[in-house]
Amino acid sequence: MSTVTALRSRHLLGITELEPGEIELILETAVAMKEVGTRPIKKVPTMRGRTVINLFMEPSTRTRMSFELAEKRLSADTLGMTTVGSSVTKGETLADTARTLEAMAPDMIVLRHSASGAPHQLARIGRASIINAGDGMHEHPTQALLDAFTMIEHKRRLQGLRVAIVGDLVHSRVLRSNALLLVKMGAEVRACGPATLLPPGLDRLGVRVERSIDAAVDGADVVMMLRVQHERMHGLFLPSLREYFTEFGLTTARLERAARDVIVMHPGPMNRGVEIDSEVADGPWSVILDQVANGVAVRMAVLYLLAGGEEGER
Amino acid sequence: MSTVTALRSRHLLGITELEPGEIELILETAVAMKEVGTRPIKKVPTMRGRTVINLFMEPSTRTRMSFELAEKRLSADTLGMTTVGSSVTKGETLADTARTLEAMAPDMIVLRHSASGAPHQLARIGRASIINAGDGMHEHPTQALLDAFTMIEHKRRLQGLRVAIVGDLVHSRVLRSNALLLVKMGAEVRACGPATLLPPGLDRLGVRVERSIDAAVDGADVVMMLRVQHERMHGLFLPSLREYFTEFGLTTARLERAARDVIVMHPGPMNRGVEIDSEVADGPWSVILDQVANGVAVRMAVLYLLAGGEEGER
Amino acid sequence: MSTVTALRSRHLLGITELEPGEIELILETAVAMKEVGTRPIKKVPTMRGRTVINLFMEPSTRTRMSFELAEKRLSADTLGMTTVGSSVTKGETLADTARTLEAMAPDMIVLRHSASGAPHQLARIGRASIINAGDGMHEHPTQALLDAFTMIEHKRRLQGLRVAIVGDLVHSRVLRSNALLLVKMGAEVRACGPATLLPPGLDRLGVRVERSIDAAVDGADVVMMLRVQHERMHGLFLPSLREYFTEFGLTTARLERAARDVIVMHPGPMNRGVEIDSEVADGPWSVILDQVANGVAVRMAVLYLLAGGEEGER
Repeated sequence: MSTVTALRSRHLLGITELEPGEIELILETAVAMKEVGTRPIKKVPTMRGRTVINLFMEPSTRTRMSFELAEKRLSADTLGMTTVGSSVTKGETLADTARTLEAMAPDMIVLRHSASGAPHQLARIGRASIINAGDGMHEHPTQALLDAFTMIEHKRRLQGLRVAIVGDLVHSRVLRSNALLLVKMGAEVRACGPATLLPPGLDRLGVRVERSIDAAVDGADVVMMLRVQHERMHGLFLPSLREYFTEFGLTTARLERAARDVIVMHPGPMNRGVEIDSEVADGPWSVILDQVANGVAVRMAVLYLLAGGEEGER
Repeated sequence: MSTVTALRSRHLLGITELEPGEIELILETAVAMKEVGTRPIKKVPTMRGRTVINLFMEPSTRTRMSFELAEKRLSADTLGMTTVGSSVTKGETLADTARTLEAMAPDMIVLRHSASGAPHQLARIGRASIINAGDGMHEHPTQALLDAFTMIEHKRRLQGLRVAIVGDLVHSRVLRSNALLLVKMGAEVRACGPATLLPPGLDRLGVRVERSIDAAVDGADVVMMLRVQHERMHGLFLPSLREYFTEFGLTTARLERAARDVIVMHPGPMNRGVEIDSEVADGPWSVILDQVANGVAVRMAVLYLLAGGEEGER
Repeated sequence: MSTVTALRSRHLLGITELEPGEIELILETAVAMKEVGTRPIKKVPTMRGRTVINLFMEPSTRTRMSFELAEKRLSADTLGMTTVGSSVTKGETLADTARTLEAMAPDMIVLRHSASGAPHQLARIGRASIINAGDGMHEHPTQALLDAFTMIEHKRRLQGLRVAIVGDLVHSRVLRSNALLLVKMGAEVRACGPATLLPPGLDRLGVRVERSIDAAVDGADVVMMLRVQHERMHGLFLPSLREYFTEFGLTTARLERAARDVIVMHPGPMNRGVEIDSEVADGPWSVILDQVANGVAVRMAVLYLLAGGEEGER
């Protein structure tokens, strides 16, 4: 049990800002929240009368729906704003959009944005709690938290866990947030991806870079495959998708090098036959759908704690 | 009164799967639901804390809003997902999208999809109840149910009713579901449309194909006009819209061949001056807006019964 | 205190239709509604079980969110419909769309439409209360009401207030509704804008047209800057944006001609460096964010009163 009983900040901007005790608190709270999701009435009154604005300036159905569901299970009122048809297209700056939303006095703003640091900018502006739902190539903290929750569910620990992260490392805020969290919690992280997609400073994060997927997977307890982001790359950095699969795709043959009880993760949406073979995605080691299910519970936990927990309910 | 007290399946995939007693049960339940819509507080707590995902992979404002309203009147939490900006555009398969949504543990998924059989595929995947809100050229069961409800409201029976369905028969899931339901309930169905838009197997459905709209309308108690679907046809099958109107458009002159107390139906949105003359659409025989109103009640009934009825409320 | 205790109409179509006492009633009710927005639980049960359809046929994130938030704080069920992917693109007329929505028995419809008079057309069709959220170049009554509320908050009165409105006057329903309201309430309105963007009949509204921004601002208690609507103008009426700023942009230098305690307003979204200098927008005289905050309170007041006030709650 975590000895920490509350989060220090009213924002969740990144894993960077969290102490290990706070990470434990969120993960423990998510256990209770997961139980709520199994009830016939999947709803608690914690955030009744609170307003959450989901501000998604980059498309993301999966994350948006997961947050919206978490908010509704906590009885919050939710408002959605996407870039399409918004004042952003009328030339308004993010700062002005943010100040405008703030003026409507929401209790929280969940922000997905293509610019690294956008949530930090919002956090300086107003009184609402800001939750980073992915900012540029920077962080995606709730993804790392739900991944950690899923690892613990299957492996009972993070300490000492050998985690291989494979794919497009340079564009991945998922890699960054996961590496930050896992290293903080005492796991061993190896990363592997195309040389043209290797970000600088991975070693400073405490991540060991491997030259081949085989070396990364060797003895791993967890293999996390990252999405090849067609839409970001315009063919600049990568050879053909076929070649990518040959060199970095996860197959059952490659998985044999991992620990016997290895689990396979993917943040979704998957490109079957590109970064992951269908046989792997659908095999007994796959916990990909557990990640989705846990995403709702972990986001409920974050919302609950930022709203002040039981204190907030009164 | 129906002697059936519950639906056998937890899904509503099509009229095909329903027995006459189940159809009666839905229509009787809709009477009570329609009453809810006339109260100042148009809300019952049946689905409080239940989650419904409205997954509309084809645009459909009318059906989507009707379902969303029905869900909210039953106090369900609703989540919307449309194709625009969704992971579908990122190359995810329907099966993966479905599994992802399922992992979020919704109680129901309402699916509109351009592929025939898509709801059946979803139903095989998970634990949520699936409601077919229109699949390709296959079925649109809630439309047929609301049409039947409207016919009974005006004609007190389905048994022996003479129903003419006129228009683009090949693309129409509305025709298919209506024919299935009406024949099951003992009505007589005649269909008429351009020869290039005649689907095979109409006789196997128990539908009599007429060569002219005049023959179809002759003595009919109900005339149901189908929408000319510009957006599906790219001018391949049809002569000009003007010629279409001349040959298949419903005018007051043509309506004179029908029964004296004929009612005119249209699933909407209407193309005035193409398949239906404005004078007909706005005349005293038109029950087109009743269909819309009844759509909400019938969908409430379906949701209510799939949620377990009063049992589910406890 | 207003001696009027209820609105005469069940619609809010424009300021034109309101009597001074009704305007006072709305503004006084908004004071109480603003208080609700400061509570931890920002919700009252007034509109529980009522349905509001937000029908935005022109994009407008700011106004749409403000209305949706107001509706949710009053516990209404909200449904959104935008033009994108709607039956409008399938060739349905506004009248048919309106009748279809009406058939679903919503209690209110909030309409934003590019055609002047569209809300009046809707009001003739059905039983729902219609709220005009901006129609063409005609009116935007809730904007004028929130502007008046903001002026009173800072100036304690409207009577005798000198208000300068500067910018694109011809396209602006904001100008029109503000002029109508302010003149009714005894304020003095001066307007100034490019000669090519001057609408006829401003004098009939009781507005004095000034040739230069300096003349308009001279001694003003309130300076309201209007948005340059790039998206409407296609470069037809205006010289370059730079020239526009030189001639009509509000700078601190220009503001020195105004009253010492002048306030600066803008309906948003702002084009910084086009119609308003950043130093002005962010200065101590700026009440632009107050306008946004008050927008939610004023819209709650309008919804509350149209729903029948306390009477409606029972």
